[in-house]
Amino acid sequence: MPLDRCFPPFPRAEYETRLARVRAAMQRRSLDRLLVSGATAIAWLTGYDADSDYVPQMVLVGNDAEPVLFLREMDLSGALHMAWLPEQRMIGYPEDYIGTADRDGYDFILAWLTNAGQARGRIGAFLERLPSRITARLVAGLPNATVETADDLIDWLRIKKSPAEVQVMREAARITDYAMQTAYDNIAPGVREAEAAAAVSAALIAGVDGLSGDRIISPLMPSGSRTGAAHLGWSDGRYGSRGSVNLELGASRWGYCAALMRSVALGRPSSRLAGVHQASLAGLESALETARPGTVCEEIAKAYTAAAGRYGFVKRSRCGYPIGLHWMEPTASFREGDTTELRPGMTFHLMLGNWITRDFGHVLSETILITEAGAECLTRTSRDLHVCS
Amino acid sequence: MPLDRCFPPFPRAEYETRLARVRAAMQRRSLDRLLVSGATAIAWLTGYDADSDYVPQMVLVGNDAEPVLFLREMDLSGALHMAWLPEQRMIGYPEDYIGTADRDGYDFILAWLTNAGQARGRIGAFLERLPSRITARLVAGLPNATVETADDLIDWLRIKKSPAEVQVMREAARITDYAMQTAYDNIAPGVREAEAAAAVSAALIAGVDGLSGDRIISPLMPSGSRTGAAHLGWSDGRYGSRGSVNLELGASRWGYCAALMRSVALGRPSSRLAGVHQASLAGLESALETARPGTVCEEIAKAYTAAAGRYGFVKRSRCGYPIGLHWMEPTASFREGDTTELRPGMTFHLMLGNWITRDFGHVLSETILITEAGAECLTRTSRDLHVCS
Repeated sequence: MPLDRCFPPFPRAEYETRLARVRAAMQRRSLDRLLVSGATAIAWLTGYDADSDYVPQMVLVGNDAEPVLFLREMDLSGALHMAWLPEQRMIGYPEDYIGTADRDGYDFILAWLTNAGQARGRIGAFLERLPSRITARLVAGLPNATVETADDLIDWLRIKKSPAEVQVMREAARITDYAMQTAYDNIAPGVREAEAAAAVSAALIAGVDGLSGDRIISPLMPSGSRTGAAHLGWSDGRYGSRGSVNLELGASRWGYCAALMRSVALGRPSSRLAGVHQASLAGLESALETARPGTVCEEIAKAYTAAAGRYGFVKRSRCGYPIGLHWMEPTASFREGDTTELRPGMTFHLMLGNWITRDFGHVLSETILITEAGAECLTRTSRDLHVCS
Repeated sequence: MPLDRCFPPFPRAEYETRLARVRAAMQRRSLDRLLVSGATAIAWLTGYDADSDYVPQMVLVGNDAEPVLFLREMDLSGALHMAWLPEQRMIGYPEDYIGTADRDGYDFILAWLTNAGQARGRIGAFLERLPSRITARLVAGLPNATVETADDLIDWLRIKKSPAEVQVMREAARITDYAMQTAYDNIAPGVREAEAAAAVSAALIAGVDGLSGDRIISPLMPSGSRTGAAHLGWSDGRYGSRGSVNLELGASRWGYCAALMRSVALGRPSSRLAGVHQASLAGLESALETARPGTVCEEIAKAYTAAAGRYGFVKRSRCGYPIGLHWMEPTASFREGDTTELRPGMTFHLMLGNWITRDFGHVLSETILITEAGAECLTRTSRDLHVCS
């Protein structure tokens, strides 16, 4: 049967550009080789993005030839579907490296590097993020190399998106908007929360207009007194006749996410909910007006804080983070003290979650793209306070 | 508004028993204190199981008083809903520890331990699994303590389930069976794969007979030539008129999972598919007959291999692993060389995935409970090769 290579979503040139950017960053750090770990960095670099990162996986980037992708042997077929690399640059380690305390895939990778004459020179690795038992073995297992910490090398390359990435995020955003509408249509007093969560999840996967999600990220949707908590899902019970629901949803398309948060009222909104919504909306709009190339991240937070503060409202947590492959990126933050400059092509989750008292919170967000003209919202759901009744 | 403490699922006595077992294991290793990290271990010990483990979280277990749960401040409200601990044993670190390279929640925790006079004696921590930058800071930050590696201390306590845990896994298994039936009802030649995945995911969440899932684990369901890969989801396309689909589904109830794998034929099964199914089914049945208290794990793998081998069939990967909170547990394996003895109350995913050629694989599994009488299947779906047409 011919292999149905529906992945990767991007042409080879996209990955070659990424590789060239990695090599340029390696050169700036005088690295001969880079050992890339972590599911997101591997997916960004190779396209391989199956649910197999509970076992050792790594990519070797040298200064010539294509990268080498190391996987468990049973995952090589998955890489043939997803990765842009030629087959001879995919190396599988056998099953006797699995499920035993004696050895694991890293032993295989270290032996391969040594045998291939690649265990020398200055090698960058994600030393600080790897579990310490692996860091120690990497350093000990590469005695003829100088092993350097390079944990953040790929993160900062990811923050600016290519046009192809932006296109995929636009598609994800359409699905996310559709899932939010599905939430609005399914949440009502007396409904089982799990029924609404099921409908929302189905929408995130089945998608809209022929665009589907490629995996499901469990939506957060606490209601009632649980809205005071930031990271809860649905409950085993039913929606009350009053109160609110905090929705945090995001579709994943080819691994790229667009996130959206809305609080909805169950029945007539309380004056507290309406007041917080008004303050946070003013803050959001002010933040959006501020976001343009040249602005630094902390200005976004300050714009939000000042506008929301005019309603007597104080936000304690940061106002957002870069978003893209696998949702949150670990670089900039919309927070005081972050002087990262906004540039065209950057994408953020401008995320205004406020957990005000232990039993009450409110959320509002957009996934935004920085363009020459300012901030464009990829998510398009109305910002009015929706009422489910 | 009164807090709706629908969590934790278990009575306080369940958690007190777990804590006593942890303390007994600490005593065997002469530990005065234990610093527990990792979302699963924290959930097992405290009940707190929100989606917040992308920031530092930790539990301190001493030899008296209740454990102390350290979280980001915004997650304390979630802990009030989920954890059995008294509120004064929940400590939140403020937002200025988030999203900056200067400091993080571990700095707060280390300072707290020092100020509370807890930064001394023999302290066990998950040193080998923590990212090495954190391991290094823990050891440096506790200069008056002897810090010991204790990574596996809780894993081995989890392998044997309490009656309350078994009950929750039975409920998860009912949902999983229902989701598999939903897959059977929705997969057919020509159907969009994402539509079937949406229906399956909705079933895993909405559940059956009033029992709902509490989060969604993205189902694996490759079809056609993608069945040769172990860890792929659905595709963006439609099911073909021939071939098969490999389904790996599992509901989560209060965090506990019951997993189930079935291959289904699209249209009339090929003789290859039918043959592999027959061989693997014979292996599964032989493994089930072998599983009883006193048997060691490798015997299960041998029983499978021998029975399937009579059909000329060779399996390369292990035959399963313990399952419970958050799916896979990292201890025993059904593989040659594993001499872990089966005991009543242990639960396993007897997992017979075979990725035979790069374009063809077959899967079959059960979630089983070891009882005095032998292996009981918690999942009940028929093992016949189902045909979707």
